[in-house]
Amino acid sequence: MINPFFKNNGPFNISDILLLINLDDFKIVDDQEIIDIKDLFTSKKNDITFFHSKKYKDIAKNTKASFCITTEILKDELPKSCTPLVVENVLVSTSLVTSKFYPSSINDNFDYTVTDITETNFKDKVKYGKNVLIGDNVILGSNCLIGHNTIIEQNVSIGDNCSIGSNVIIRNTLINNNVTVLDNCVIGKHGFGFFPNNENNLRYSHIGIVIIGENSEIGCGCTIDRGSMSNTVIGKNTFLDNQIHIAHNVKIGENSIIAGQVGIAGSSILGNNVRIGGQAGISGHLTIGNNVEIAGGSGVIKDISDNSKVMGYPAKNIRDFLKDNK
Amino acid sequence: MINPFFKNNGPFNISDILLLINLDDFKIVDDQEIIDIKDLFTSKKNDITFFHSKKYKDIAKNTKASFCITTEILKDELPKSCTPLVVENVLVSTSLVTSKFYPSSINDNFDYTVTDITETNFKDKVKYGKNVLIGDNVILGSNCLIGHNTIIEQNVSIGDNCSIGSNVIIRNTLINNNVTVLDNCVIGKHGFGFFPNNENNLRYSHIGIVIIGENSEIGCGCTIDRGSMSNTVIGKNTFLDNQIHIAHNVKIGENSIIAGQVGIAGSSILGNNVRIGGQAGISGHLTIGNNVEIAGGSGVIKDISDNSKVMGYPAKNIRDFLKDNK
Amino acid sequence: MINPFFKNNGPFNISDILLLINLDDFKIVDDQEIIDIKDLFTSKKNDITFFHSKKYKDIAKNTKASFCITTEILKDELPKSCTPLVVENVLVSTSLVTSKFYPSSINDNFDYTVTDITETNFKDKVKYGKNVLIGDNVILGSNCLIGHNTIIEQNVSIGDNCSIGSNVIIRNTLINNNVTVLDNCVIGKHGFGFFPNNENNLRYSHIGIVIIGENSEIGCGCTIDRGSMSNTVIGKNTFLDNQIHIAHNVKIGENSIIAGQVGIAGSSILGNNVRIGGQAGISGHLTIGNNVEIAGGSGVIKDISDNSKVMGYPAKNIRDFLKDNK
Repeated sequence: MINPFFKNNGPFNISDILLLINLDDFKIVDDQEIIDIKDLFTSKKNDITFFHSKKYKDIAKNTKASFCITTEILKDELPKSCTPLVVENVLVSTSLVTSKFYPSSINDNFDYTVTDITETNFKDKVKYGKNVLIGDNVILGSNCLIGHNTIIEQNVSIGDNCSIGSNVIIRNTLINNNVTVLDNCVIGKHGFGFFPNNENNLRYSHIGIVIIGENSEIGCGCTIDRGSMSNTVIGKNTFLDNQIHIAHNVKIGENSIIAGQVGIAGSSILGNNVRIGGQAGISGHLTIGNNVEIAGGSGVIKDISDNSKVMGYPAKNIRDFLKDNK
Repeated sequence: MINPFFKNNGPFNISDILLLINLDDFKIVDDQEIIDIKDLFTSKKNDITFFHSKKYKDIAKNTKASFCITTEILKDELPKSCTPLVVENVLVSTSLVTSKFYPSSINDNFDYTVTDITETNFKDKVKYGKNVLIGDNVILGSNCLIGHNTIIEQNVSIGDNCSIGSNVIIRNTLINNNVTVLDNCVIGKHGFGFFPNNENNLRYSHIGIVIIGENSEIGCGCTIDRGSMSNTVIGKNTFLDNQIHIAHNVKIGENSIIAGQVGIAGSSILGNNVRIGGQAGISGHLTIGNNVEIAGGSGVIKDISDNSKVMGYPAKNIRDFLKDNK
Repeated sequence: MINPFFKNNGPFNISDILLLINLDDFKIVDDQEIIDIKDLFTSKKNDITFFHSKKYKDIAKNTKASFCITTEILKDELPKSCTPLVVENVLVSTSLVTSKFYPSSINDNFDYTVTDITETNFKDKVKYGKNVLIGDNVILGSNCLIGHNTIIEQNVSIGDNCSIGSNVIIRNTLINNNVTVLDNCVIGKHGFGFFPNNENNLRYSHIGIVIIGENSEIGCGCTIDRGSMSNTVIGKNTFLDNQIHIAHNVKIGENSIIAGQVGIAGSSILGNNVRIGGQAGISGHLTIGNNVEIAGGSGVIKDISDNSKVMGYPAKNIRDFLKDNK
């Protein structure tokens, strides 16, 4: 899929990229053009990728990328077709290269391409409120409703039969059919991802998007951040209550029910048929299985296997929790 | 009280209702007209009601309704004047019937009856900001202020001396005198209530409203959902801080103080003079007494009696909690 | 610094002030003019101050104020140059006097001085969205972006290179250079401070402001309340994620990172390089040291010393918490 939201400013010569990451001494045979930066799995020949943790060793062995930003210790895992570029901090260097390819993915300034919906072709196609703003290249399906003061930023795509509330801001997002987004949501802004740095933190690119499956509902005042290198996904027929925060790269399965004020930290992956009570929190980089129930107010700090019911902080088996707290 | 927000599309013949809930084989003597659907307590002759839990046995014995959607096990509790309609799933059938009477109470699409306040009679009566939208049949008392970009949807009634902030959305709500609603609140949308169903959850009606007592204050970014069959109520002189979520059917008493980011789940009932610290959560269907104090961050999962002070998750007597956690 | 936000309606004769706090019997030699009301430390000759807790004894001894609202027990701590005014409830009396000096600091009605930015001189100076509203005497630096539907209320000052999102409301706030404020924030409203009173709580003045240091970022849907007698401060290069609530008088240091849905209660003071995980809460009036790490979901109810890592509710040493919860 071509990313519809973030224009690839490349290709760039590998010599330019080496300069950027302070490897200008690095000997290259041929100053070839690099087309894109992608993760280990999806990158192809003439792409550059990155490899920063042993966890990804098996994927690294088979990467198709021509170059890989990595460490002294990890570089030998790469195939011969992939030239390792050894740096001090893989993520910072990766961030620099991603910013070069996708400069518009770092900051989330307001979309100044928008026009009032009454000046667009949608004025005869959808039912809309007052002061609705639509960016360039937006796609809206048939039979949609867009509430007052709502902003649909450039390149956003919304399916058929969707009802979008008032005061909603949507950017960098694909919404499937029959989705309801209630008032005051902000969907698709960049995640809370940056390299801490005294005086001036370094924001990294967020070239992932938000994808919302069909028949889903997003409650009032939710924030759903887009992914950095992968996407943030809400599965089909999954309902979110009010004031929920979904961080970057999170993937939620189908038919799940998430009550008010829940927060899910970055890169956690949830299965199908998950139920989460109000104000529960899930730490980052966890895997939550199918059919899991998480009681309201719980704090989940480790993986949860299929069909488990957990409660407490740290969340544990619900029977144990209730017994321990009699 | 006639519900000012949801038009009753009835009456309907009982035969049409039987068809809707797959009881077309049910023998009726007389195809009488059914006027309304109400709960066991408030329904009258020629109304239909529902009875799904033993908990309501005593009320069921005295219902005035002519028909009652119920189960094989519960049906014998009903008086002779009330014909039981035995179904597989009482709540789903009730939802179908409620949707027939009140079709506009299921979805919360934006109100397209609104006009800019400058085109209404209120332009000389209240002090208002830019881009204020007012729906049909709205009532605004004297000496009110309505902030920028605020939307007061159809039939909403606001008393005297109220100050409504900017970016506020109010629907299906009655606000008494001297109430302050701060910026970015969403008040009166439907609750997070539906029947889970693979592929396509079934939303049920929310014909309750929100009622806010006089002298109350609602902080920035709060969400207060309207009730399903009963109302959501904020008592007199009760103050809510920012980012609080009040779910459907919740009733909060008078003179209560609720700090930031608290969440109260559906149908819980709180007494007067209750004080709740920041980020505390209260589970659904609980009863919290008068003069109760709940410490910040607590998770309340059972009823709390009058004059108690609780803390922890699950919340318990505050002295015990502090002793156990020395 | 002259407070740019709240006009001092004084000076007032001390006899008028005595009348207000029911001390009209108090014998005064000379009906002198009182210029301002300030705290013990910053007040000067011809100011009035207040002293309500032994904790401030050492500051009280050296106050320069001419009068001080205090109690029978505390009054002897004051220097001879300061005349004690003994009242029943110091804070209520202080509130009455502050309200007299600063009547506009009690309520947060919408700013009706605003005009559309296209009718101001900023239309050629900053990049702005649709429906942007700017109050009287606003200062905007160079190279700023202001998103759609955003309201910058009177006297707010914003530095250079700032990016303000859409649907943002800013009042009573000074923002330094290179600050990002994301969508749907409300910054600078009064805090959740009032004297509980049956039938009708008594709101007290909030004459403090919000100050945001350079290079900081405020996430979507955050609320940052202004201070009552002191300011609410976000230090340089401090990043806040989405849906965070910062109460009145809170001071956060530099280079700190605060994840989503965190809440910090009134008057707590945080050091530099503090990291707080998602949904953690910090009680009011606490001191959190430098380089402190607070795990997500924790509830902090006592002071935390420099370089500590804490977790749990109540938060304790993270190693102890993890050991106890194995």
